[in-house]
Amino acid sequence: MFILKIGGGKDINWDYIAQDLKTVSEKFIVVHGANYKMKEICQKINLPEKIVTSPSGFSSRFTNQEVIDAMLMTYSGLTNKRIVEVFQKNDLNALGLSGLDGRLIVGQRKKTILAKENGKTKALHGSYTGKVTSVNTALLDTLLEQDYVPIISTPIISDENEIINADNDRLVANIAKAIKIKTVFSLFEAPGLLEDTANEDSVINKISRSETEKFIAKVPGRMKMKIMGAQEAFNHGVEKIYWGDGRIEKPITRLLQGQGTLIEG
Amino acid sequence: MFILKIGGGKDINWDYIAQDLKTVSEKFIVVHGANYKMKEICQKINLPEKIVTSPSGFSSRFTNQEVIDAMLMTYSGLTNKRIVEVFQKNDLNALGLSGLDGRLIVGQRKKTILAKENGKTKALHGSYTGKVTSVNTALLDTLLEQDYVPIISTPIISDENEIINADNDRLVANIAKAIKIKTVFSLFEAPGLLEDTANEDSVINKISRSETEKFIAKVPGRMKMKIMGAQEAFNHGVEKIYWGDGRIEKPITRLLQGQGTLIEG
Repeated sequence: MFILKIGGGKDINWDYIAQDLKTVSEKFIVVHGANYKMKEICQKINLPEKIVTSPSGFSSRFTNQEVIDAMLMTYSGLTNKRIVEVFQKNDLNALGLSGLDGRLIVGQRKKTILAKENGKTKALHGSYTGKVTSVNTALLDTLLEQDYVPIISTPIISDENEIINADNDRLVANIAKAIKIKTVFSLFEAPGLLEDTANEDSVINKISRSETEKFIAKVPGRMKMKIMGAQEAFNHGVEKIYWGDGRIEKPITRLLQGQGTLIEG
Repeated sequence: MFILKIGGGKDINWDYIAQDLKTVSEKFIVVHGANYKMKEICQKINLPEKIVTSPSGFSSRFTNQEVIDAMLMTYSGLTNKRIVEVFQKNDLNALGLSGLDGRLIVGQRKKTILAKENGKTKALHGSYTGKVTSVNTALLDTLLEQDYVPIISTPIISDENEIINADNDRLVANIAKAIKIKTVFSLFEAPGLLEDTANEDSVINKISRSETEKFIAKVPGRMKMKIMGAQEAFNHGVEKIYWGDGRIEKPITRLLQGQGTLIEG
């Protein structure tokens, strides 16, 4: 069994991914993003994106209730169900869930976050984000036993029953821990971890878990989160993480053939 | 066990509904609309609504792929998940699903529909609507056994794996048939079936199945569909259908106490 994490970029090819997954005999869970669609819809509905930078330098979207509404539309609605459709067309019995559904993913809300603005650190209130604290493994086990392919995405539910956002890579790490998964595939819009972000030919083919630390300092914000998610996954018992290209044919088969990046714990 | 159908009107009060359901000891399934949110979002994203009228006088939204996208955003995303949140706040372990998920509701697509325009009947192509043909009862049984409250809405999936729209009242009738449900509650923005649509005091307290026919001719389009849905439900084994007000406190308790309309098969 494995988890397949798929980024929400514009050029992710869901048809290629589903065609490749059709040939897989193992069971698996999909966790997906929807960042591109989110930006597109926010523009259409005239909801400006507010990006905040934490004191330690991580950038993220400030999530108020309007942003949660937009997430429900784009992550839980548009993207999740279109993925289910593509999977069903490829004979994969996909079933889409947000973290709310049946309390699949519960987290703890962090109501106030710290942000750096013009060199000063400010407290921002009204944030609906949090950290995963538990996973409804009984629900996942039931669905997997009955041969459904769970297609999961944020938002999740807080222990006070609020809808909150959470980082998808950390969500993957927590699902892996909960159902004891050793292998994670992560597909995005690059051929793997790059030595030089600007050069797609600079893929690092293999690194160890301990080597990830040095990359945190030099990669861009979103990639930092991805590396931290990987580190959390290793802490939670994952042994192998593959990073590969979600835009190409046979993306998972190619990772198993040695393309992309393999991070070993 | 019963099905609770809830309309997608602006003034439906989900808090009141959830508070009332909390006191219910039976298991149940919820089927919901999202019409008001759909109109609101379509306006925001500048997607004009195209209403077509069938040769027999039924009005409905013409559903192309853009409309399906808007449905996924508003029915499957925004509305479905906000209902799950309200239910979870009220200790009801809700789990939201579209008809696509795990092939919960399969239908047959009607690619070409007939519409009356300026007195002439025209064939319109590219419609993504259809009629329910089967329900995944195994999935529903599993969820109900494990004490989840399934929160279901259109769209559904066609037998050729396309996302299609289907009438929610007919969806209720088909779910009732599939899992042998005898009682349906239907809540909307009126106190029941009205003798005079303009007068909310003209509630018809009790009618028989055979009496529904005469109302089809005199009620507005959406109500016509509701009556036809009720007739189909009776054909599928339902024995009691309650119609009541989704805007008031204790809406289901009040129906059981004799308010609203009871239609008996």
